Amino acid sequence: MEYYSSPISKLIEELSRLPGIGAKTAGRLAFHIVNMPKEQVDALANALTEAKSKVRYCRECFTLTDDELCPICASEKRNHKLIMVVENTRDLAAYEKTGRYEGVYHVLHGAISPMLGIGPNEIKLKELIERLRGDVEEVIIATNSSLEGETTAMYISKLIKPTGIKVSRIASGVPVGGDLEYIDEVTLFRALEGRTQL
Amino acid sequence: MEYYSSPISKLIEELSRLPGIGAKTAGRLAFHIVNMPKEQVDALANALTEAKSKVRYCRECFTLTDDELCPICASEKRNHKLIMVVENTRDLAAYEKTGRYEGVYHVLHGAISPMLGIGPNEIKLKELIERLRGDVEEVIIATNSSLEGETTAMYISKLIKPTGIKVSRIASGVPVGGDLEYIDEVTLFRALEGRTQL
Repeated sequence: MEYYSSPISKLIEELSRLPGIGAKTAGRLAFHIVNMPKEQVDALANALTEAKSKVRYCRECFTLTDDELCPICASEKRNHKLIMVVENTRDLAAYEKTGRYEGVYHVLHGAISPMLGIGPNEIKLKELIERLRGDVEEVIIATNSSLEGETTAMYISKLIKPTGIKVSRIASGVPVGGDLEYIDEVTLFRALEGRTQL
Repeated sequence: MEYYSSPISKLIEELSRLPGIGAKTAGRLAFHIVNMPKEQVDALANALTEAKSKVRYCRECFTLTDDELCPICASEKRNHKLIMVVENTRDLAAYEKTGRYEGVYHVLHGAISPMLGIGPNEIKLKELIERLRGDVEEVIIATNSSLEGETTAMYISKLIKPTGIKVSRIASGVPVGGDLEYIDEVTLFRALEGRTQL
C-alpha cells in the first residue's frame, strides 16, 4: 500500500537525492511544495532547469557564470595581473563579499586528494598554468586550510616558483572574534608561526 | 557586483524560500544542482510541477492523492465504519506504516489554534461531520499531543458525542524504548493517568 499519491512519492524521491536532505526532510518539503502557490512552484522548477542549462564555466577563471566571461574577468576595474586561486565558486563569492580584493580569480573546482583519487589532472590546474603565460605578477593561493587544500597549495607553489612569478598563501590563524580557549592546537601553532610585528 | 551568475542567484533565491533552507544551504544545494546530470535536474523540476498540478484532496477523507478517491478510501478491505482523524497526510502515513490500522482516515489539514487565528472553519471539520451522517461506528482522534492538537480533539469530541457515535483518543504516554529519566513531567503524568491493569 502506498501512503502517498505517486506524484508526491516521486517528488520525495527526487528531493531526497539532494545532499543533506533525508527522507523526513524531503517529506516535509514535498508537502510544503504541494501547498505553495502554483507560480512559486513553477518559479522553482524553472530556476532549476535554467541554472542547469545556462550556467557554464568562465573562459578565463572557470567560475560558474552565464556568459563567456564572468563579470569579474570582464571588468576593467580589476587587476588582471593578480590571480587568487580558490577551490570553488562559493569560495570566490566569500572573498568577493569582503569587497577588499581587487584582483581576479582562478577556480580549481576541487582540490588534490589522493584519498579520493583526485589528482592534479582532475582539477583546473593546467588551465591555471596556461594563464600564467600572460602578464601575471602574483598568484595568491586561497585553497582551504584542510589536508587537501594544503596539498594543493604546496603542489601549485612548486609548479609556479620556477616561472619567477610571486606565489603567496593566505594566512592561517585565529579567526577574528575567536576565543583562544576553543581553538585547536594546530591553528594556535600556525597563528604563533605567522605572528607579525607590531 | 554579483558574486554568482544570475541563474544561480535566482535558484538560490527560490530554494531559500523553502522551509528550513537558509541562504547557506540554498547555496550548497544550488551548486550541487548545477553539477548534477541534466536528466536528474529535469526529473526534479518535473516532479515539482507534477506534484503541484496533479495532487488534490480525496473526496472522502481529504488526504492528498492523485485520484478522486485515495487508495485507502477506495479499498474494500478497509473498515469504513472506523474513522481516524489526523492533522495531515504525513500523520496518516505514520499510522499506515504501522500496518496495524484497518479503518479509514479523515485529514483535517491543520488543528484549531486561537493563537494563529485558525478556527474550526479553517480545517476540514464540517466535512468530518458530514461524513458522520453515513454508517460510522467509531471516530478515533489522533491529532498531535500539542496544545492545538488537544484543543482540536476536545472540540471534535464535544461535537460528536451528542450523535451517539463512539469517540476515542489515542493514548499519551512514555514512547516505547523511551527512558523515563529524559521524559517531561506532563508525559509522565499522562502515562500514570492512563495506566492499564496487567
